[in-house]
Amino acid sequence: MTAAALSPVPHLTTALQGPLRQIESTLLARQDQIEAWFRQQWSQVPPPFYASVDLRNAGYKLAPVDTNLFPAGFNNLNPDFHALGVQAMQLALERVCPTARKILLVPEKHTRNRFYLENVATLRDLIEQAGFQVRVGTVSPEITEQQEEELPSGRKLLLEAVKRDGDKVGLADGYSPCAVLLNNDLSGGVPPVLDGIEQQIVPPLSLGWGSRLKSDHFQVYSDVVREFAELVEIDPWLIDPKFRNCGEINFKTREGEDCLARNVAALLIDVKAKYDEYGITERPYCVVKADAGTYGMGIMTVSSPEEVQNLNRKQRKGMSSSKEGAEVSQVIIQEGVPTLEELDGKTAEPVVYMVDRFVIGGFYRVHGGKGSQENLNSPGASFERLAFADSCNTPHQELEPDAEPNRFYAYGVIARLALIAAAREIQQSEA
Amino acid sequence: MTAAALSPVPHLTTALQGPLRQIESTLLARQDQIEAWFRQQWSQVPPPFYASVDLRNAGYKLAPVDTNLFPAGFNNLNPDFHALGVQAMQLALERVCPTARKILLVPEKHTRNRFYLENVATLRDLIEQAGFQVRVGTVSPEITEQQEEELPSGRKLLLEAVKRDGDKVGLADGYSPCAVLLNNDLSGGVPPVLDGIEQQIVPPLSLGWGSRLKSDHFQVYSDVVREFAELVEIDPWLIDPKFRNCGEINFKTREGEDCLARNVAALLIDVKAKYDEYGITERPYCVVKADAGTYGMGIMTVSSPEEVQNLNRKQRKGMSSSKEGAEVSQVIIQEGVPTLEELDGKTAEPVVYMVDRFVIGGFYRVHGGKGSQENLNSPGASFERLAFADSCNTPHQELEPDAEPNRFYAYGVIARLALIAAAREIQQSEA
Repeated sequence: MTAAALSPVPHLTTALQGPLRQIESTLLARQDQIEAWFRQQWSQVPPPFYASVDLRNAGYKLAPVDTNLFPAGFNNLNPDFHALGVQAMQLALERVCPTARKILLVPEKHTRNRFYLENVATLRDLIEQAGFQVRVGTVSPEITEQQEEELPSGRKLLLEAVKRDGDKVGLADGYSPCAVLLNNDLSGGVPPVLDGIEQQIVPPLSLGWGSRLKSDHFQVYSDVVREFAELVEIDPWLIDPKFRNCGEINFKTREGEDCLARNVAALLIDVKAKYDEYGITERPYCVVKADAGTYGMGIMTVSSPEEVQNLNRKQRKGMSSSKEGAEVSQVIIQEGVPTLEELDGKTAEPVVYMVDRFVIGGFYRVHGGKGSQENLNSPGASFERLAFADSCNTPHQELEPDAEPNRFYAYGVIARLALIAAAREIQQSEA
Repeated sequence: MTAAALSPVPHLTTALQGPLRQIESTLLARQDQIEAWFRQQWSQVPPPFYASVDLRNAGYKLAPVDTNLFPAGFNNLNPDFHALGVQAMQLALERVCPTARKILLVPEKHTRNRFYLENVATLRDLIEQAGFQVRVGTVSPEITEQQEEELPSGRKLLLEAVKRDGDKVGLADGYSPCAVLLNNDLSGGVPPVLDGIEQQIVPPLSLGWGSRLKSDHFQVYSDVVREFAELVEIDPWLIDPKFRNCGEINFKTREGEDCLARNVAALLIDVKAKYDEYGITERPYCVVKADAGTYGMGIMTVSSPEEVQNLNRKQRKGMSSSKEGAEVSQVIIQEGVPTLEELDGKTAEPVVYMVDRFVIGGFYRVHGGKGSQENLNSPGASFERLAFADSCNTPHQELEPDAEPNRFYAYGVIARLALIAAAREIQQSEA
């Protein structure tokens, strides 16, 4: 596939060009200062093994709304930049196995999702091309020995059952990895076979959705943004979504609902004040989602406190279950950032992929049936994925701040701010 | 430009497929072992800032014939893989300026060569996109202040005179770099303005052609190959060109000519023995070239000792001058490795580019008027440059050993062996 055959950058459907140009112009003008700052950050904290960050670009605001430390979707990246991923993978794996060379890749349990298995195959290829041995070890109870999958891309993927031997894991034939690379977000908790093993596990088990909270991440992200915004002299709000959280919520029994409504009201007031400051006339809204969880389950968009009090039975049920059936008990209430990017009239939002400290690509989620305020990553969502036509590390000073390579560069900067937040989270969880 | 628009891999015009498949099959089959070995090497010796390696692929043999530590030609690489260069450049510059961010790029003096200036502009762009400030400081006496060049690509390049202030160099307006990046091979010796400065200079001044010898490089390369060949269990000769050198030679006065003839004779006997071992029926030849120097000046191909004794006046003159008029006084006699790669009936040879420890691309020199035993990089040579259509770090285990990505991978492995040799040379020169 060639760059030319891919989609162009979505059109920004916003009249509020002022602050947007401000963000992108600032990032471009201060590029060397920004990159020096990132170098300094990475000398203080090691980057996560990999991550993907969902961004929302409102024109006046460009902010992350979710940071995934067990990213799927590597198969959706532009194959033209595959070599960039291989190079970054070499650096990431070198940290984990400086001398050894056997990796065990542990995927999600749901082995019937062909798209997800394509992601696993792409990860396997990246690791192999980086010069390591890799085999896919599943913790799915459905697979007790081996199972070969034929994928739509024509690739084959061999899934093998992880075997435990004392304090080590490996495969039935004695394959003994130096490290376990998790591509399983542990929504269902830590599988016993991996608990307490001697080998290094990346990302660490403590960062699985069984224990990690989105609100912790966004709290750290706010700290990172405060430092960064001071450096580049912008209003932190332009790149940081406001959020709140409250204690336990049970949507079925309506326990904790008042606390939620109060926090929604307070957040909307905060956001409205910023809207007024920038002359933004749209109505603020916020997104209520599981504080621990992923996959777009248990997400709702509200623009008044009453909405959370007047949920119907179906909505309550939807908010009560998350991936692998985990009960939603804590929620994060996040400022809604509308995505004002559109491609052929369809709503689009960028997702940025990183390996080690490098942006290796990304894609747009493009959804014809969703509005600018809606979540494009809901379960069963039939969105298209359009790989970024360009890499995110080739800004052009001589082009306009919102020219294609410069917009990709801006995505990459904001995604890397979320990456630093994730790195600090990992450091804290290991301390 | 898209990969599809670029040239395919040259056709190998050799019937001697046996040993070739042996080299490429071995490199592919032992990829993870090879990459682990490279990681171990780079943990012991830092890589050169950058380098390019000229390879010759005889089918039965794949070997470097020249390693340039001040590579020009970055503008000839495939723009599709520019991002790979930016990423590697970040790592290379980070070693040099971990906290600071101003680089002074010092190019060759010949400011009228537009192709060379395109290379300088590409290097400047790579450094800038890696997030550093960069300005081009020339030591050419023709430029006393500033000179802006308009390049065929449409880019502009500002050349400024390097100014010395005590033990530091910079530019007239006070630009004070943390490091000097040399793209000047110092054939004319070390410019006084750079001698003894406080700032770090990469590559080190001692590696300029004023003091470096090709025979030293190939001696170290032989050591590297011995270790590598033991690891992957191949005959070192398959990837190492034999060579000899002798003392001072003066082609005008014919002093040292007998020594040269004796060494040519001895080398040809050595090579013939290897040819017999592998059933290669062609006539061995060797290449006589300046031991210190570049740019294809002062190079001749001989297949008998008599040829060096019967040089005509013009040939003697050609061998007596090298770049910037340096007298050829020491020569290296290197086993000739015929290039059996052909593209549309034209002779082709690969050149591989590396930044830090990463292969970032390469191109083929393609020459319609030269044979398989001739040097394609002679002065004024009107060879074409065809960028590699693929990166060198994406081998495919499931494809044939001589499939396109696997041949590129093999080039990259051999080029990186030469890179390790250069790294050890730098380490020795600094010890």
